[in-house]
Amino acid sequence: MATNITFHPGNVTHAERCSFLRAQTGATLWLTGLSASGKSTIATALEQYLLHRGLHAYRLDGDNIRFGLNKDLGFSQKDREENIRRIGEVSLLFADSASLCVTSFISPYAADRELARKLHTSHKPALPFIEIFVDASLAECERRDPKGLYAKVRKGEIKSFTGISEDAPYERPQKPEIHIDADKTSVEDAVKVIAHYLIEKGIIKA
Amino acid sequence: MATNITFHPGNVTHAERCSFLRAQTGATLWLTGLSASGKSTIATALEQYLLHRGLHAYRLDGDNIRFGLNKDLGFSQKDREENIRRIGEVSLLFADSASLCVTSFISPYAADRELARKLHTSHKPALPFIEIFVDASLAECERRDPKGLYAKVRKGEIKSFTGISEDAPYERPQKPEIHIDADKTSVEDAVKVIAHYLIEKGIIKA
Repeated sequence: MATNITFHPGNVTHAERCSFLRAQTGATLWLTGLSASGKSTIATALEQYLLHRGLHAYRLDGDNIRFGLNKDLGFSQKDREENIRRIGEVSLLFADSASLCVTSFISPYAADRELARKLHTSHKPALPFIEIFVDASLAECERRDPKGLYAKVRKGEIKSFTGISEDAPYERPQKPEIHIDADKTSVEDAVKVIAHYLIEKGIIKA
Repeated sequence: MATNITFHPGNVTHAERCSFLRAQTGATLWLTGLSASGKSTIATALEQYLLHRGLHAYRLDGDNIRFGLNKDLGFSQKDREENIRRIGEVSLLFADSASLCVTSFISPYAADRELARKLHTSHKPALPFIEIFVDASLAECERRDPKGLYAKVRKGEIKSFTGISEDAPYERPQKPEIHIDADKTSVEDAVKVIAHYLIEKGIIKA
């Protein structure tokens, strides 16, 4: 009978969980970059790639976070920090669950990204946090401008905008695990680079 | 080559995701009941059962929520509501990811539980929200008292305590999907009841 099972007291360990799910481990793949740098497109393609391989993967982005968990937050400095803190905590839960969590947020401040990283590295057991810098030039982002946001900034309709306004700098990652030259790299090649890294580090199987 | 794949533009649908992961669907299994009613023990055993079957399952409880995502929250009425709201939102993300999310919180207020339910039923596609009432009598909870909390309440060391203090009622679920008489039901039997329900509703395979 399918429901006939003997329980052992206590929690399932992370290693047991991964073993049951035939996963190597859980991890967070943290994409960061300017608006229109291509983060979401790469994140979507990466999620597809992982799911196609039968791996549990899930993407956190503005659509499922800003209108849900973080709908109480605005765009003040304090709220932006809290936004990233919560995303870091939720990605940690997914990584702990043996899922591969792909986050796709500008996350412009090094301190906020470090906080998200530290949540993973100080977790017991430590969980991989892979910072992926989707590095597109401002000129290229402005040329693409799929949502017309840069145009609005130039017309003065948006006051504070990451990478343009003095009060909203984008702090480039100094030592990201993966650096993608997004001006020159196709989505397919970006996913390949990430997949090779994950295989090399033993996070997914070859 | 393992990384050689063609991407299609746009998001993976929930049905595609479930298909890739060989999951029937995602769902939230929301346990509610008094402190010491046995929620966490049943949740832990249920998670083990689901993982043993190779299904992606994850338990949200005080340990991984109160000290992480919700560590900024206290125990005021407003903070308790926000605590449950966030848990509802996170469980929705797990359910959307095709995971079976088991939540284990007192969640004493009907309105808060309804809000969590509504997040799932109004999601596109709607995701199953299964309210599981772990119904132990106050006398039995007080007899078990594994954390010594009821003893502290009786000594006056804890002022406000769900199910005892007038200002902290436990609102019994009126129409839970599953009702467990926790005074008389073993952990094994509770898991069997839940497993049968999940099979009957097509949420997991027989």
